[in-house]
Amino acid sequence: MIERYTRQSMGRLWDTEYRFSCLMRVEVAVAKAQGELNLIPKEAAAAIIKKAKFNTKEILDIEKTTKHDVIAFVTNVASNVGEFGPYVHYGLTSSDVLDTALSLQIHDASLELIETLETLEKSLTSLASEHADTVCVGRTHGIHAEPTTFGLKVAGFVAELQRNIWRFKLASDQICRVKLSGAVGTYSTMGMALEAKVAADLKLPVEDVATQVIPRDRHAELIWSLSMLAAGFERFAVEIRHLQRTEVDEVEEGFQKGQKGSSAMPHKKNPIASENISGLSRLVRGYLISAMEDIALWHERDISHSSVERIIFPDSFILVDYMAHRLTQVTELLVVKEDKMLSNLELTGGKVFSSHVLLALIKKGMKRESAYKKIQSISHSIKPGGSMKKELLKSPDIKKLISEKEMEDIFSGRKHQAEIKKIINRVL
Amino acid sequence: MIERYTRQSMGRLWDTEYRFSCLMRVEVAVAKAQGELNLIPKEAAAAIIKKAKFNTKEILDIEKTTKHDVIAFVTNVASNVGEFGPYVHYGLTSSDVLDTALSLQIHDASLELIETLETLEKSLTSLASEHADTVCVGRTHGIHAEPTTFGLKVAGFVAELQRNIWRFKLASDQICRVKLSGAVGTYSTMGMALEAKVAADLKLPVEDVATQVIPRDRHAELIWSLSMLAAGFERFAVEIRHLQRTEVDEVEEGFQKGQKGSSAMPHKKNPIASENISGLSRLVRGYLISAMEDIALWHERDISHSSVERIIFPDSFILVDYMAHRLTQVTELLVVKEDKMLSNLELTGGKVFSSHVLLALIKKGMKRESAYKKIQSISHSIKPGGSMKKELLKSPDIKKLISEKEMEDIFSGRKHQAEIKKIINRVL
Amino acid sequence: MIERYTRQSMGRLWDTEYRFSCLMRVEVAVAKAQGELNLIPKEAAAAIIKKAKFNTKEILDIEKTTKHDVIAFVTNVASNVGEFGPYVHYGLTSSDVLDTALSLQIHDASLELIETLETLEKSLTSLASEHADTVCVGRTHGIHAEPTTFGLKVAGFVAELQRNIWRFKLASDQICRVKLSGAVGTYSTMGMALEAKVAADLKLPVEDVATQVIPRDRHAELIWSLSMLAAGFERFAVEIRHLQRTEVDEVEEGFQKGQKGSSAMPHKKNPIASENISGLSRLVRGYLISAMEDIALWHERDISHSSVERIIFPDSFILVDYMAHRLTQVTELLVVKEDKMLSNLELTGGKVFSSHVLLALIKKGMKRESAYKKIQSISHSIKPGGSMKKELLKSPDIKKLISEKEMEDIFSGRKHQAEIKKIINRVL
Amino acid sequence: MIERYTRQSMGRLWDTEYRFSCLMRVEVAVAKAQGELNLIPKEAAAAIIKKAKFNTKEILDIEKTTKHDVIAFVTNVASNVGEFGPYVHYGLTSSDVLDTALSLQIHDASLELIETLETLEKSLTSLASEHADTVCVGRTHGIHAEPTTFGLKVAGFVAELQRNIWRFKLASDQICRVKLSGAVGTYSTMGMALEAKVAADLKLPVEDVATQVIPRDRHAELIWSLSMLAAGFERFAVEIRHLQRTEVDEVEEGFQKGQKGSSAMPHKKNPIASENISGLSRLVRGYLISAMEDIALWHERDISHSSVERIIFPDSFILVDYMAHRLTQVTELLVVKEDKMLSNLELTGGKVFSSHVLLALIKKGMKRESAYKKIQSISHSIKPGGSMKKELLKSPDIKKLISEKEMEDIFSGRKHQAEIKKIINRVL
Repeated sequence: MIERYTRQSMGRLWDTEYRFSCLMRVEVAVAKAQGELNLIPKEAAAAIIKKAKFNTKEILDIEKTTKHDVIAFVTNVASNVGEFGPYVHYGLTSSDVLDTALSLQIHDASLELIETLETLEKSLTSLASEHADTVCVGRTHGIHAEPTTFGLKVAGFVAELQRNIWRFKLASDQICRVKLSGAVGTYSTMGMALEAKVAADLKLPVEDVATQVIPRDRHAELIWSLSMLAAGFERFAVEIRHLQRTEVDEVEEGFQKGQKGSSAMPHKKNPIASENISGLSRLVRGYLISAMEDIALWHERDISHSSVERIIFPDSFILVDYMAHRLTQVTELLVVKEDKMLSNLELTGGKVFSSHVLLALIKKGMKRESAYKKIQSISHSIKPGGSMKKELLKSPDIKKLISEKEMEDIFSGRKHQAEIKKIINRVL
Repeated sequence: MIERYTRQSMGRLWDTEYRFSCLMRVEVAVAKAQGELNLIPKEAAAAIIKKAKFNTKEILDIEKTTKHDVIAFVTNVASNVGEFGPYVHYGLTSSDVLDTALSLQIHDASLELIETLETLEKSLTSLASEHADTVCVGRTHGIHAEPTTFGLKVAGFVAELQRNIWRFKLASDQICRVKLSGAVGTYSTMGMALEAKVAADLKLPVEDVATQVIPRDRHAELIWSLSMLAAGFERFAVEIRHLQRTEVDEVEEGFQKGQKGSSAMPHKKNPIASENISGLSRLVRGYLISAMEDIALWHERDISHSSVERIIFPDSFILVDYMAHRLTQVTELLVVKEDKMLSNLELTGGKVFSSHVLLALIKKGMKRESAYKKIQSISHSIKPGGSMKKELLKSPDIKKLISEKEMEDIFSGRKHQAEIKKIINRVL
Repeated sequence: MIERYTRQSMGRLWDTEYRFSCLMRVEVAVAKAQGELNLIPKEAAAAIIKKAKFNTKEILDIEKTTKHDVIAFVTNVASNVGEFGPYVHYGLTSSDVLDTALSLQIHDASLELIETLETLEKSLTSLASEHADTVCVGRTHGIHAEPTTFGLKVAGFVAELQRNIWRFKLASDQICRVKLSGAVGTYSTMGMALEAKVAADLKLPVEDVATQVIPRDRHAELIWSLSMLAAGFERFAVEIRHLQRTEVDEVEEGFQKGQKGSSAMPHKKNPIASENISGLSRLVRGYLISAMEDIALWHERDISHSSVERIIFPDSFILVDYMAHRLTQVTELLVVKEDKMLSNLELTGGKVFSSHVLLALIKKGMKRESAYKKIQSISHSIKPGGSMKKELLKSPDIKKLISEKEMEDIFSGRKHQAEIKKIINRVL
Repeated sequence: MIERYTRQSMGRLWDTEYRFSCLMRVEVAVAKAQGELNLIPKEAAAAIIKKAKFNTKEILDIEKTTKHDVIAFVTNVASNVGEFGPYVHYGLTSSDVLDTALSLQIHDASLELIETLETLEKSLTSLASEHADTVCVGRTHGIHAEPTTFGLKVAGFVAELQRNIWRFKLASDQICRVKLSGAVGTYSTMGMALEAKVAADLKLPVEDVATQVIPRDRHAELIWSLSMLAAGFERFAVEIRHLQRTEVDEVEEGFQKGQKGSSAMPHKKNPIASENISGLSRLVRGYLISAMEDIALWHERDISHSSVERIIFPDSFILVDYMAHRLTQVTELLVVKEDKMLSNLELTGGKVFSSHVLLALIKKGMKRESAYKKIQSISHSIKPGGSMKKELLKSPDIKKLISEKEMEDIFSGRKHQAEIKKIINRVL
């Protein structure tokens, strides 16, 4: 997994080199458009398009003096452009380039992440289809409730994932914007036309009303959508962890050759991938708070969001991408123990059909209150190994309303699966 | 304000009475559809439609014994329906009714809130239009940057509010769903047809894949959208608070007859409405964390979300509605001091035009680095009361490139306002 | 429970009436000290001590005009004092009274809460003692690990509760302070002596360096300590919920006569108290964020914390008090199923002793790596119903190092309980 | 700063190498104690003490197969120990070593951080002393309230820092514990004596009641104490940012040779260090949420906390250490503009003395209500440049009660500074 993950390389999209390359795409697109609009000499534009390049190490050296990374970057690029170097970054303020470049970076990282998410969706969908008929117990409050199928369980996670992918795409669309309106968002140096031209070139919409920056509610929305993805993963991970408990034992994370579960206890096989995902979701949820607090910047902006975003953007993307990869592997290697699911379902001796008995009694004319009390009292008196069906039929009040054959029908569980395939089809 | 707010009555939509009335709308709609689908006797449906009613006090009394509010509710309604009482809640599980009723409640509260938000939007839009040409300084890092107008500032808040209203509507649409799929989401007792019929009646979509409940990612999305509204209000409130500072003094919250600012200091006029909003936003942001943690319920659900939602749903809606009302009042009564805005703009003796001098020098062939250093050094040496324009023209290097007339033009600030009306028009 | 809770009346300590009574205790204590220090006429002090009283309804009426609750309060009290009314609140700023009164309120609420917590501690300690020898399986990752006792499990929660009570007491001590240093903390009107005298009278320390208010890090600490209590309750609640799962079935929350678990499924007994507590902990954790954000007030303070604190102080105290009461009831009524604990322990056929086999093999000279692999491989091959002990003894490599008698000894589990009583004694 | 920070090397204490060195200190201390207690052969202990070493690269290679970092570590160390290698980690479970090693790591990092914090405290204390008499205006709600001194402002931050250092030390003491009680905290393999001996050797207390791990409330407390430090820094940073605003201009962060404030606007000097700190505080606050959610681990623990802690422990320590270093530099280089402070104080023409006029009028027999209204009305009517004192003396009602000389005395502000040195002395 780790190997596969590394090849996928979300990390690379968030390293310093890639960040500077995005800054450069912006500076070059701006110079090109400025040339066309006669905002700078056409030769200057041509020179920048042709010669612009940067060297990360050199930039970091310059920054030690300027304490300003964009100035360091521009200085480095300009020196490579030569004579027309002064026209690099002409008429721009740092945030024009930084925010537009962040849009490009998020755009690229979003494409990468969506691919990862769609792979997971596919794995989960297969699992749901494969186990559409695998009967198991549904649990509410951790207590057996009624029968369901494992496929339906999984379908619920697919549906949530689909919603979260939709949310993420929406959020990613909302944030990826070109912003070239200058120091306080008035287009005072370059005018609206430049921004429109660059936006067309970069294939992104413009920011309608900016301050010095793209408003941070857009960024908060993106981090939120990532934390929603994480929370959805967490819900699935918690399900796996519950189902792998020794007493439940209905599924098991694949255990690889050579893997060890505990340094002290050689017998252990633990759902460590799912536990890992549970934890990471807490982390991304923490980032959400930081992102929400970044919204209320002062006036035409302060720079307090910057230190936050340098950490939470790379980390949220990388963690969510990692979680999705890891969950894909969990899904693909998952051991599903159908026999154990059936035997667990029978653990309560049929109590899981109590609601259907209730309905039958009401239909036959018994008062809801009386029927409820009768079934509750019989149900609570059943000993381990006992049979709900038999005990119910021992009650004269019940027997006179429900025949043995009708009771058999109730306890067959046929009604429970009638609609399940149709439900699952809703997410396929 | 408080009076007007009370009349608006978001609070009423979240009281116990209203909640039970939503439960009842669901039970009645279900009985009606069950009658049509022959799931219960047609007379039973007719009786329920005709006679169903509840008494809040009686329900709370019954709950003391049952420790289960829906059972208490159903018992009370059934007793009013009489003979056909047992068919109230027939084939349903509590969450069918609770979650569908919560959808109705959220739906109604959303309509109320949207009205409030659109009123605020209208007030802000007027303010933006009115002050489209009111020149003031734009500030980054709290430091004067370049001129802008007060209308453009406000337009930024309008744009953010429009995005947040859009997010809220989307989230509200996403959560308002009919869910009647029973104990573990399998439609085991009533089948899909009932849910579809009730959904058509209630004019809401169905939940595609439920557990016992509507998945809680939908609820988290709604609370998030409310916390985004709050964060947007906070950003505007922080702007007001900054602009009302004694030294800045560009705007002032309306001060009402009889109002007192401090028990000790009679001279005080404080931006207390904006401060109140700043605080409340923190509160709603805290609810977001609770809502996000509610997502990963166990299996087909546990009930841990319930205690959280009983507080955060009413409180978030009521607080955000209150904040919007209060901000509307702030907007409508806002004192805008145009003279002070102008005199503040002149505080730096023209430094706010430094970027335009930089561009002019580069255009005339000076290297960016040299031009920057020269302007920076002159700028930092200016004493209070000094004039940037004059000092720049004292420099032979600059004077030989930029004529006095050109310099006048730069310092007129004409370029800064050229596009502002067009920007503001984007949000009108 | 609800009845008992209501009698305990944490709620009353946070209502409007009680809040005003705390304001009055401060105003009276101040007047008394001012009389003694000749800061106001002695007759004025005497009159205030004798006649000061307030009427909540009247105060709320006055506030409608003044928009300032302390001024409304002072006006009301002064009118009752008559001639010397102007000396009520003499030389004070509102925050002097508000923050000192909040200290009194927190002080009283803390005493109430500590009593509740100590009752819970007592219940838990009894449970731990009672079940010191009740053997059950310890689980890591949800998977059986090694034997432990139920008493030791509970002792862990006792120890955590003791730490949290200690944290809460510390935090409560830290926040309960007298602050009378005036508008910006300079003692400009009344001097230090008054504060010292009032502090002695109210038996609380003074705030060493205030702004207009007591610094909000103290308040954040208190809310944190409450959220720690909640988180500790949550850990115990999660344990109960796990142990009550149908498959595990080792404990059960007491189920009261007349109680119903589900409107649809009469057989259900759910751990609803523990689930309730799980949810409420998320809520208090959300308040922590709001409290932490309240710390960085502007300058000598802004008033943004006020709207937050009006909600999170009452709610955190009331919720944590409620949770502790409810958990006490859970503890007292808890059904502990010792037989099921034993049968669960045997579920793995003895795998839970694998670490002791590992140690024995190493001691007999086998390499850790080889011993680990051998045990792991045997352990993973055991079928349900199989016996780890038997399978181990079938391996010639193992049998030649560990005799059957030694193996019996390992699988007796004697070593596992040797120290447990001593551990439990650490918290008694 | 960056250079100085790097030398301080908090980062090194959190790298992989250092982490493994802490694991090794534990394994060696355990072997030593086991030899003394005859739990392992004395030669084995001697061999481990003498030969134990590790190679980080080799460990990471082994982990690729075992998927378990402690087993990989032990395998590597054991191979270096040779014949007695199997006795490395004898009788321990991974968490025994991991949690005890984390205690060592936190212990070392705490010493480093405390040194950093005490340096900051010293800088702040000097600043407070130096400016004990530097008169400036105190502001509430951002509005001028009454005079104070810059030294008193700073003293407030010192007092908060002292509290936060105290909280941090307490929290660090609480978490640094030796835990060797085995797989589920029963001391089943090694007994209590070993733990006690190792604890004495490592000079840390033992964990009284553990599960497999040290309970995570201790870890949450530590992260909380770090987030409190961050929040305190943030409060000071926000003060600086406010005071550096163009209109206020009372302090300025030191601006270094070659530094640039904006790529577009050469005139800018921005409080970027303080803004950076504001942002980082949000980040650490987010970690607090993650840490709080880690408390309720399942049963004798699950491993979900691990992925969280691998990030939040290093990051919180490193960030808080960095913030403290940076704030020390801000403090040391801070430009304090005493003249501007004085001229700002005079901005309101003396309104800041309104509370003292109020008291004087009450003392002379005017009703509080009438006095308040009179002063409020005069105060609100004063035009920029006007004089409060003069306007008050124009009122016959006031003039008949307060003589011109008394008025002079009130407006001298002498009373405001009488106690300030005494307050500041409280934190020195």
